[in-house]
Amino acid sequence: MPSLSQGKQVKAEPVFCLTNYLEAKKQSIDAALAGYLPGEDNYPPVIFRAMRYSLFAGGKRIRPILCLAVMKALGAEEREKDALPVACALEMIHTYSLIHDDLPALDDDDLRRGKPTSHKAFGEDMAVLAGDALLTEAFALLSGRELRELVAPELILTIINEIAIAAGCFGMIGGQVVDVSSDKGLADADTLHYIHTHKTGDLIQASIKVGALLGGGGKEALEALSIYGGRIGLMFQIVDDILNVEGDGAKTGKSIGSDVSRGKLTFPSLFGMEASREKAGRLLQEALEALSGFGADATPLRLLAEGIMDRKA
Amino acid sequence: MPSLSQGKQVKAEPVFCLTNYLEAKKQSIDAALAGYLPGEDNYPPVIFRAMRYSLFAGGKRIRPILCLAVMKALGAEEREKDALPVACALEMIHTYSLIHDDLPALDDDDLRRGKPTSHKAFGEDMAVLAGDALLTEAFALLSGRELRELVAPELILTIINEIAIAAGCFGMIGGQVVDVSSDKGLADADTLHYIHTHKTGDLIQASIKVGALLGGGGKEALEALSIYGGRIGLMFQIVDDILNVEGDGAKTGKSIGSDVSRGKLTFPSLFGMEASREKAGRLLQEALEALSGFGADATPLRLLAEGIMDRKA
Repeated sequence: MPSLSQGKQVKAEPVFCLTNYLEAKKQSIDAALAGYLPGEDNYPPVIFRAMRYSLFAGGKRIRPILCLAVMKALGAEEREKDALPVACALEMIHTYSLIHDDLPALDDDDLRRGKPTSHKAFGEDMAVLAGDALLTEAFALLSGRELRELVAPELILTIINEIAIAAGCFGMIGGQVVDVSSDKGLADADTLHYIHTHKTGDLIQASIKVGALLGGGGKEALEALSIYGGRIGLMFQIVDDILNVEGDGAKTGKSIGSDVSRGKLTFPSLFGMEASREKAGRLLQEALEALSGFGADATPLRLLAEGIMDRKA
Repeated sequence: MPSLSQGKQVKAEPVFCLTNYLEAKKQSIDAALAGYLPGEDNYPPVIFRAMRYSLFAGGKRIRPILCLAVMKALGAEEREKDALPVACALEMIHTYSLIHDDLPALDDDDLRRGKPTSHKAFGEDMAVLAGDALLTEAFALLSGRELRELVAPELILTIINEIAIAAGCFGMIGGQVVDVSSDKGLADADTLHYIHTHKTGDLIQASIKVGALLGGGGKEALEALSIYGGRIGLMFQIVDDILNVEGDGAKTGKSIGSDVSRGKLTFPSLFGMEASREKAGRLLQEALEALSGFGADATPLRLLAEGIMDRKA
């Protein structure tokens, strides 16, 4: 059958489609996670069920995708499969932090991504233990056989250390501690900045850093990527705060206005909506500028930043 | 001044004193722990206070001492200081597990070693986060600079993997999951064996295993030490159950009979006190037999096993 373009030889520039990219990465991460996580045929099944329930509750896999996109930006796309255990460990740690954050003693949330939270589905005891298990499993995966067959042991140790520090008391947990305390009356710009930088930002930064280490990035590239990571981490949290005020509950899967009713310290509550939107816009610009030295391979990172800015959920 | 023994030249065999040994090891572990744990001058201070509170709440340091005693048994006593980060990480993981076990949603204990439990002292939110922080900090320590200056990276990764698996969903957490479920009516010998083997046993086994790896033990030594570890781990838990029924609350720092009032599955509740004591005695014999190929350097391990059997708290 004759083609419509027959004889015309149209040579188009390949157009990068973020939706397709995200879907492809999400699929490879989901497949890897499903393989790494022990099945529900193991004993005691309830813990594996609870781990799987939260890990496959519709997460967008932003941290693992960032890790892989950084490798692509550094021209190391063909080694992305080496990074899958690291990418999946990041997602396990993120998921554990959500399970514990949602507990009645912390944020007391009933819904997460439109589904009952872990303690609502499995009871509070199992939610504590499923979180503990995902955190521990992340380190088992990082120190396990698969990664050791692909990556030098010194580099793996550096990656484990980066992730543990970002997730620990000077990072994600520190941010969560101050966030929990901020419910109790502390409220100033420094406190808010601390919460945003650490609670969400540090693990996002670590995702980018370990991607850069695995991709073999030099000092200059690492510095640029660190600026990019810092900006999008903070932007991510500000957009989260904005969505909590004016988002569509059906899309975010959370109760709208829950931060306000809880008297929670947020960017809009401290600076207003207008200033919050402006701040997020400035951070996006700075994130994109940090990538100016990178070529076309950094397109996913650029579009990811824009996607985080424009997201509706 | 003339000495009383002047001219007599008494040459005595050195007598090994377990109390002195334990005290010396505890002191070096406590000093190392105090150094590794970030101080309360860090921000946010409450998390460091909560971590420190539970880590220095009078723990006997059995797991780190076992790790060091195994090195001595293998003739590697002079390299014990290399093992301190590993020994301390084991204690951090043990402490985190106690904090989470004590939570209202799990065992709901108000006292631990005679002091208010973490959630009683700091609130339930901080107890969850302090546990999370200690677990994460353990892996930061294991992948940190100090250990990497002393031990080969391949070996460190093996140690991290051993510990993560022992502490995870197939180990300590698995045991805890079944223990929590056993409150709800499950009660047979297999279930009890699973709980005992995993909830307490696996981290004790791991302490011995990583001590053997650091001490450079061969295959045969590792196998003997693994039998020793399995026997004392189970014995430890049976003695714990016995003490919960008939111990001295002032010494154990726990409410006596709390397992019974909670309807908890224990060795005495299933087999009676007499059979429990006999079983513990048999396990001690088997643990000592496993060490028969070791010389005088294994004296601490032998006396530690007897000490676990005879303990009153």
